[in-house]
Amino acid sequence: MIEVCGSPLLFNLYDHSDSIVVVIDILRATSSICVALEHGAERIVPVAGIEEAKKYRQQGFVIAAERNGEMIEGFDFGNSPFSFMGDNVKGKSIAFSTTNGTQAINVAKHAHQVVIGSFLNLDALCSWLVRQEKNILCLCSGWKNRFNLEDTLFAGAVVHQLKSAGLSDTSCDSAIASEHLYLAAKDNMYKFLENSSHRRRLERLHIERDIEYCLTPNQTQVIPILQNEMLVRLEEVGVMEK
Amino acid sequence: MIEVCGSPLLFNLYDHSDSIVVVIDILRATSSICVALEHGAERIVPVAGIEEAKKYRQQGFVIAAERNGEMIEGFDFGNSPFSFMGDNVKGKSIAFSTTNGTQAINVAKHAHQVVIGSFLNLDALCSWLVRQEKNILCLCSGWKNRFNLEDTLFAGAVVHQLKSAGLSDTSCDSAIASEHLYLAAKDNMYKFLENSSHRRRLERLHIERDIEYCLTPNQTQVIPILQNEMLVRLEEVGVMEK
Repeated sequence: MIEVCGSPLLFNLYDHSDSIVVVIDILRATSSICVALEHGAERIVPVAGIEEAKKYRQQGFVIAAERNGEMIEGFDFGNSPFSFMGDNVKGKSIAFSTTNGTQAINVAKHAHQVVIGSFLNLDALCSWLVRQEKNILCLCSGWKNRFNLEDTLFAGAVVHQLKSAGLSDTSCDSAIASEHLYLAAKDNMYKFLENSSHRRRLERLHIERDIEYCLTPNQTQVIPILQNEMLVRLEEVGVMEK
Repeated sequence: MIEVCGSPLLFNLYDHSDSIVVVIDILRATSSICVALEHGAERIVPVAGIEEAKKYRQQGFVIAAERNGEMIEGFDFGNSPFSFMGDNVKGKSIAFSTTNGTQAINVAKHAHQVVIGSFLNLDALCSWLVRQEKNILCLCSGWKNRFNLEDTLFAGAVVHQLKSAGLSDTSCDSAIASEHLYLAAKDNMYKFLENSSHRRRLERLHIERDIEYCLTPNQTQVIPILQNEMLVRLEEVGVMEK
């Protein structure tokens, strides 16, 4: 069974004790997490607060944070996927705090398994999900607990791939709606999101390049998975792979 | 500005102090409320609990209740719109308790104004909303606080009419998504909802006739409005009409 939860505030309405939860924050946290692990970051700890992130620096972490789309002063990185592509992330442990995505990861952390989804790892993630034979819950981070469009489109892409693989029950209305929206949008997601709240919100930041990149499917095979409250590459968690 | 809130649990994320809130529970509470007022019910008090509804009987109310789609023993009515069409509602006060719709009305009751929407009063409601020049928040009752498809379609219909009248700002992602879904569904909503959770849930109750009726636009001009915690016909609240 595959379900889609449109807001972290609704997460506890779903039975997730034996499910794989896919956390989604397309613009830009879960996209950037995929990029950082692809470019050799060793592990990423998602932290809720700015001050909490700063404390990790004393333990040798590099620190990344964003609030309302902007980088925080005194931090090594913001939330742009391009900032996680250099040699400066290789082998590093990163403490990462964002407006929505890292909060959603924390909400989900007691689920059976938590993995990170973005268009950048869409196919790799879906083909792994298909093999697990578990219930799957896509958790959209949204914007400050509200529904958002880009996370829903990605949830719809996952629903569509799992249905195409013959696997999913579609009785979740949110999954049905997400798949519809994805199929309507998929040929030009950038255009489809033109009027979306987050694109408008980010307009003043001139990060069109980030947005286009975050909507590009299949740039990495990396599947970030939460283990001991840290995100690591799935292939390094051999025991959990089926 | 028009916004759509997909669950009563998310209602407090929206600023509603100066907004008109349209409460939506297509299958079947808000449809039945429109029918009852169309057929001469004097007023309807939405109550959360079964026991609370029973107490109203002592005050001369007829009582209606539904849980999980079924009528409750000892009540005068369930939740079928057809049961509110006879002479037995004329001039009556009704206490009404349902799984989702009446809870949503109670969540919204501190908003500037609360009105009831269903496909049955779609055009009348929208043309009134256009004249009010207020922010509008469509509140979908959902199913036990989860997103549902039929309420979203109706919210999308309202968004579409208000946009067509040149009135609404569409920066709410939920409003954008709802309108998309409505436009995809509108030529055959019954078919579109075939796999929806609520249609599956109601299948065992054999109420296809109810569902078809609840998806039929423009059967009444009545706009139920909340006044002193009772739903009455808008035209009887002259002072609030613009």
